Amino acid sequence: MATHSNLTLQPIGFVESSLTDLAHAPRQSDLGAPEAWLVITPHFADGLAGMTADNDMLLLTWLDQAQRDVLSVRPQGDPESSMTGVFMTRSPHRPSPIGIHRVRIVDIHGNRIHVLNLEALDGTPILDLKSVRGTHG
Amino acid sequence: MATHSNLTLQPIGFVESSLTDLAHAPRQSDLGAPEAWLVITPHFADGLAGMTADNDMLLLTWLDQAQRDVLSVRPQGDPESSMTGVFMTRSPHRPSPIGIHRVRIVDIHGNRIHVLNLEALDGTPILDLKSVRGTHG
Repeated sequence: MATHSNLTLQPIGFVESSLTDLAHAPRQSDLGAPEAWLVITPHFADGLAGMTADNDMLLLTWLDQAQRDVLSVRPQGDPESSMTGVFMTRSPHRPSPIGIHRVRIVDIHGNRIHVLNLEALDGTPILDLKSVRGTHG
Repeated sequence: MATHSNLTLQPIGFVESSLTDLAHAPRQSDLGAPEAWLVITPHFADGLAGMTADNDMLLLTWLDQAQRDVLSVRPQGDPESSMTGVFMTRSPHRPSPIGIHRVRIVDIHGNRIHVLNLEALDGTPILDLKSVRGTHG
């Protein structure tokens, strides 16, 4: 078995959004998340070649406000529900705080991508954008 | 806008698989990927509480054989196709080499999870397991 110490990532960009407060973040994107801009760092902008509006993409974010020592949570934050393992849930508080969001692209201006319904806070680091199809990277 | 330098992850476990060679890895899981075991490190095993067989989960892996300076690829590795931005594709070679796999759990023994059709190499670091439903973490 391979041995690994720490794995290091660098953001490819950041979210620009009117959402600035966790308390106002909707729990799921269908509960009224705002539009947002994905601002890709110029160094990585060549990776956007061929991207067009009206596509759905997978957006990976770094949930930088997460508590990372959490292994048990109440699903949906419901105080009535019983504790369950964090790996059964989509809680943002988890050892590897990577958010996966399906976003609809409505417009692209250079390295700025306009998307609908994104429940990520302003300033959230962007790790990756992927096609919604396929199972490799 | 937030500023961030490097973001650091620690694997929560590793893949055990008969796949040991990239040249034999199927490009997509429906092309005959083998069964595999997800071996979760004891430190993180409490996060599995409540997980049962016959569930589909999202598995996030660290594609440790990836070339990370790639911004343009040929989709599906097809030499006939034209180059496109890596963020339009699921190429494993990308700046943030995070793999997303939908896996069917068939059995769980303690911290060992038996899954079907996983196109990840033996020893691949596991970053996260998530519910297939939801859009936060």
